Amino acid sequence: MKNSFGTALTVTLFGESHGEEIGAVADGFAPGIPIDEDYIASRLAQRRPTDGLSTARHEPDEYRIVSGVKDGYTTGAPLTVLIPNTDTRSGDYAETDGIARPSHADYTAYCKYHGYEDRRGGGHFSGRLTAPLVVLGAIAATALVERGVTIGTHIARLAGISDRGFGEDLQEDIDFLADCPFPVLDTASGSAMRDAILRARAEGDSVGGVLETAVTGLVAGVGEPWFDGVESVLARALWGIPAVKGIEFGGGFAMCDRRGSEVNDAFFMGEDAPETRTNFSGGIQGGITNGMPLLFRVGIKPTPTIAKEQETVNFLTETETRVTFGGRHDPAIVHRARAVVDAVTALVLCDLLAGRYGTDYLAEG
Amino acid sequence: MKNSFGTALTVTLFGESHGEEIGAVADGFAPGIPIDEDYIASRLAQRRPTDGLSTARHEPDEYRIVSGVKDGYTTGAPLTVLIPNTDTRSGDYAETDGIARPSHADYTAYCKYHGYEDRRGGGHFSGRLTAPLVVLGAIAATALVERGVTIGTHIARLAGISDRGFGEDLQEDIDFLADCPFPVLDTASGSAMRDAILRARAEGDSVGGVLETAVTGLVAGVGEPWFDGVESVLARALWGIPAVKGIEFGGGFAMCDRRGSEVNDAFFMGEDAPETRTNFSGGIQGGITNGMPLLFRVGIKPTPTIAKEQETVNFLTETETRVTFGGRHDPAIVHRARAVVDAVTALVLCDLLAGRYGTDYLAEG
Amino acid sequence: MKNSFGTALTVTLFGESHGEEIGAVADGFAPGIPIDEDYIASRLAQRRPTDGLSTARHEPDEYRIVSGVKDGYTTGAPLTVLIPNTDTRSGDYAETDGIARPSHADYTAYCKYHGYEDRRGGGHFSGRLTAPLVVLGAIAATALVERGVTIGTHIARLAGISDRGFGEDLQEDIDFLADCPFPVLDTASGSAMRDAILRARAEGDSVGGVLETAVTGLVAGVGEPWFDGVESVLARALWGIPAVKGIEFGGGFAMCDRRGSEVNDAFFMGEDAPETRTNFSGGIQGGITNGMPLLFRVGIKPTPTIAKEQETVNFLTETETRVTFGGRHDPAIVHRARAVVDAVTALVLCDLLAGRYGTDYLAEG
Amino acid sequence: MKNSFGTALTVTLFGESHGEEIGAVADGFAPGIPIDEDYIASRLAQRRPTDGLSTARHEPDEYRIVSGVKDGYTTGAPLTVLIPNTDTRSGDYAETDGIARPSHADYTAYCKYHGYEDRRGGGHFSGRLTAPLVVLGAIAATALVERGVTIGTHIARLAGISDRGFGEDLQEDIDFLADCPFPVLDTASGSAMRDAILRARAEGDSVGGVLETAVTGLVAGVGEPWFDGVESVLARALWGIPAVKGIEFGGGFAMCDRRGSEVNDAFFMGEDAPETRTNFSGGIQGGITNGMPLLFRVGIKPTPTIAKEQETVNFLTETETRVTFGGRHDPAIVHRARAVVDAVTALVLCDLLAGRYGTDYLAEG
Repeated sequence: MKNSFGTALTVTLFGESHGEEIGAVADGFAPGIPIDEDYIASRLAQRRPTDGLSTARHEPDEYRIVSGVKDGYTTGAPLTVLIPNTDTRSGDYAETDGIARPSHADYTAYCKYHGYEDRRGGGHFSGRLTAPLVVLGAIAATALVERGVTIGTHIARLAGISDRGFGEDLQEDIDFLADCPFPVLDTASGSAMRDAILRARAEGDSVGGVLETAVTGLVAGVGEPWFDGVESVLARALWGIPAVKGIEFGGGFAMCDRRGSEVNDAFFMGEDAPETRTNFSGGIQGGITNGMPLLFRVGIKPTPTIAKEQETVNFLTETETRVTFGGRHDPAIVHRARAVVDAVTALVLCDLLAGRYGTDYLAEG
Repeated sequence: MKNSFGTALTVTLFGESHGEEIGAVADGFAPGIPIDEDYIASRLAQRRPTDGLSTARHEPDEYRIVSGVKDGYTTGAPLTVLIPNTDTRSGDYAETDGIARPSHADYTAYCKYHGYEDRRGGGHFSGRLTAPLVVLGAIAATALVERGVTIGTHIARLAGISDRGFGEDLQEDIDFLADCPFPVLDTASGSAMRDAILRARAEGDSVGGVLETAVTGLVAGVGEPWFDGVESVLARALWGIPAVKGIEFGGGFAMCDRRGSEVNDAFFMGEDAPETRTNFSGGIQGGITNGMPLLFRVGIKPTPTIAKEQETVNFLTETETRVTFGGRHDPAIVHRARAVVDAVTALVLCDLLAGRYGTDYLAEG
Repeated sequence: MKNSFGTALTVTLFGESHGEEIGAVADGFAPGIPIDEDYIASRLAQRRPTDGLSTARHEPDEYRIVSGVKDGYTTGAPLTVLIPNTDTRSGDYAETDGIARPSHADYTAYCKYHGYEDRRGGGHFSGRLTAPLVVLGAIAATALVERGVTIGTHIARLAGISDRGFGEDLQEDIDFLADCPFPVLDTASGSAMRDAILRARAEGDSVGGVLETAVTGLVAGVGEPWFDGVESVLARALWGIPAVKGIEFGGGFAMCDRRGSEVNDAFFMGEDAPETRTNFSGGIQGGITNGMPLLFRVGIKPTPTIAKEQETVNFLTETETRVTFGGRHDPAIVHRARAVVDAVTALVLCDLLAGRYGTDYLAEG
Repeated sequence: MKNSFGTALTVTLFGESHGEEIGAVADGFAPGIPIDEDYIASRLAQRRPTDGLSTARHEPDEYRIVSGVKDGYTTGAPLTVLIPNTDTRSGDYAETDGIARPSHADYTAYCKYHGYEDRRGGGHFSGRLTAPLVVLGAIAATALVERGVTIGTHIARLAGISDRGFGEDLQEDIDFLADCPFPVLDTASGSAMRDAILRARAEGDSVGGVLETAVTGLVAGVGEPWFDGVESVLARALWGIPAVKGIEFGGGFAMCDRRGSEVNDAFFMGEDAPETRTNFSGGIQGGITNGMPLLFRVGIKPTPTIAKEQETVNFLTETETRVTFGGRHDPAIVHRARAVVDAVTALVLCDLLAGRYGTDYLAEG
């Protein structure tokens, strides 16, 4: 399955930046999950270009759910979300046809699809396709909340500026982030990050960063050994998000420089079950949840579309050329990617829980 | 598929540390790949505990291929490799039954399998199960070499000590690494790393590190958009390797702190096709290879089994306790994990190439 | 994957009889397959209720391809076809809510989805969902024709009336069937079948029958041993078509009453390769094509919706009741199912060929 | 996955007739299923060549379970069963190398594997590979029995001789069949069938037949719509069994000649839930179980290996030749195939139930 992820809950993505509609099918939602339109809208808003921080295409994200929902609840049949492309302006792209935007997928798409690919605006590779994922992810998150599972993501670092880490009261942090359009835990860090974005924009450049995600409320015993461990399935799906360059769980790369005695997670008897004093394992051991919060970080590269002149080639004419992108683009997508990371995480967790406890599990509440 | 990865070439892993046999089935090898026993032996040797650097279990790794091979060539039918467990000494484990080794999978296995799991020596979660992967990976690598694809991995960092990066002549570095039992590019760094391992061992502790892998010779256009991109499928499979805590491609996390203008890969016209001046993309754009070398790094945590006393619980008796591991164990597995990373990479690349060019592709040479 | 079939080419079906849109996504079409709108229209016409033989819902089947096609060719990205539901008349169904139509999926859907299912008009189980399959199948058939593969299906039996079997010149028969709205090889049999349908309709009853399909031009060596043999993958997909009660390949059930010496297919040297004198194997041995025509039959039960009064229950109220369906319905769907069998067959063959020869194979012509 | 079936419970088959070992891996068994060695042995005995009715290879079927079982219970990790090949006598086959046995897979294997295939005794296509399936199926059946699900198969027809159908007391019939080595419900029919087999053997010929299977105790609501319906998944797996030429559910092909009013299954209120007066649906509507017994029939062709002289080709030399098989072979495998049909059915049902109710479901009792 090329454009799909998930086993018990399978998500398939389709569409092109300048095609008629983009969308996704989720096959495997339990029947009876409520469709919370306000919540979906709030998550879509978090993915949308932020006023002041973006010069990118503004689309209303008016989605339609055309199957799998009746009377405000999932039916259990495949749920399809469609979003029409309205503000397509293909004219922007016609004269640059064949020019490989550096660090975009234009050239690789050409290598794979032999010129039949839709090249306008990144075509099928456009980050715009993450919008339907956010709709599906909001539905998944609604199901998870009923089972006590919550997900929160903040910008751990942007343009080299760090937010504070998750605090002692992790649930409070997650709840706080839910309504943040620019998700940082420390206000001062947030201001510095916004300034860095504006500065990059003014200079025709872009910045990247790192998102950090925490999940609370997951029972112990979810996930499979080896190649369907929680890390494996999450990483596979998260790496589908454009611009991801690194993923680490728990202590991540930093703990690889330390000694076992420093980063082993000592167990003690918690109220109901064993818990660990530290969480370098990120809530997972042997691919399976241990009841501690799930913790991971996703590195997002600086947006490759920049206004500065760049050296490149036109692969249709096989000539060298130079490009300067005057059109709309984002000086940063880290804060926008957060809604997508949350969405993919929610969908993957629903998949894992449905695989573990059966397809009805998520609707039982 | 729980213990499997791959679509056109599917690998399924089975066995327990102290069971009768461990093994793996590879379904989808092209017919006609030669079985190079010397090469398989050399890769198994690289995975084996290194004299002087290890106190771990020494097994001869005497494997048998019981299906899918005839007259020294793959037949195209499922290829099964078996390795008997001989040096099992279950007595080591009996008296510690129910004690959760910190940062091991003992407790999560119990949560998932309700006590039916084989707990001896980590059971199904034991790193020992990577041995059959190495056999299969060596067969995959043989097929790849015939198509001009080579894979090399070095220890980029161990206990905080860095090796030099891959050099201008990447192929030379890859060829050099092929025969290194302790794979570093800079001899002095290698000595320092070995000293760090011995020091950790002497102190009953362990160290971790980072492996860096390069792949040359991959044609452009391999991989799928979104969730079956090269990063996604590699990450999914690599995260099956025990102790992996982070994966990054190309410029990785570090490039997320920089600006787009600094890390975009400018194209120019190479001899036959477009190439890029830098390779922050790690040879992949939009999930698809661009003809440049594939580059990624895998973070390996310090071995969790250490001789120092640790706080933990017995999950069977639900009591707190303390553990000290006097038995055999490794003060580092980073250098041994290298053969496994190479193997998994080779298998994933065969899968991708077979999916792209058909199941016969790899044997056509 | 619940509502999907195929590995290299995956088709996912969605929608409900009275929902907003029905549709399907095909992920894995080679880039460069031409979209032949006339041909698609002709296949949709063959699936549509036939004037005179049907009282069923007439919908224009106005489909839109909203992704995966550009400038008249497939791009290689997921191709999504949507068909809006216009003539929905849910009023027909409201007052019968909870009444299990005998031999329909109303009750089983309720058992599975706990009442959240869309019950109007069969909901997600409606035969109407086969329309997008026909669109996708027509695209697949276009690709196959370029590789010399043609598919033809006739009504081998309807209401117990038999058509003649495929003749010596199989290709001629297949070509003849291409434009038959009521696909029979013998005109007299066709008239008798039409009469039987009209008679059943007049009596408020329905009839079933058997479709026979032949495929020419398939190379030898396609398919996999055991559970991905050609029979396995075709049967799995064909059994998704509503009303299928039996599938047989080659000599089928009848040859099971005979002796080996009578039904073994003797080989002889044909012009280019070995051929068989008879074709009881249906073109497949050990799950793999042998170069002879593929032959199979699919049994289609009489349409369960009939005008006669029937005994049943209301599963919502858990009471017994009687039903008489006055609304639109088909006295036979055998002839209409033919376009669906052809479509599914074409999609499965594209999947098998893409798996065998790589994803580009089908577009190379 | 080529040699695999199942999603929540995946079975992968490997080995060759004359290889070192044949075997299978089942990944997804719930932890805690008891291993009943006597029951496994009894099922293997039913698959073994029957004294008097067979001249085929006699192997002890000494299986070893080398992973996934501890202390007599499944652990939840992949369960691997191995059976060594002892009585291989490859000498039988050497001089006939390249001769395509009519209606065997020799030639198609050659087309697919280009001569690298193991051709001895049918190689990977040998019916001998069904033995490990029987071991796994017996474990699955043990799990099902604890949930009230029982499976029984009889020879509905052999050499054209019919057994009586399943009777009013279906459970009694299923229980009766459990211990029948030659599974027929009517003793006289059984004698006639045995005579027909002996007669065919005496004449160097073979006979085929039809197996009929019933499953009781399945809850309503199991299975998925469209392409993962119970028929689809069962048919896919059953068609992996060598010699299967047809599959039909419930009323099958015969009901396709009748009218809707005759074969619709009227509902009435049973003690606990709706039931149907007849069972032409075979316990399935819309791919989902309705709580009635599952009913299907599998057509098994006459064994293709016969002693009579047959016309054929040698595909290595591309010459025509004639063959007479003097070696061991079966004049009928219908009765032996019964254990395999039961096994595959049990494994598929465990897969469906695990998918529906979670991986622990089958062990909860």
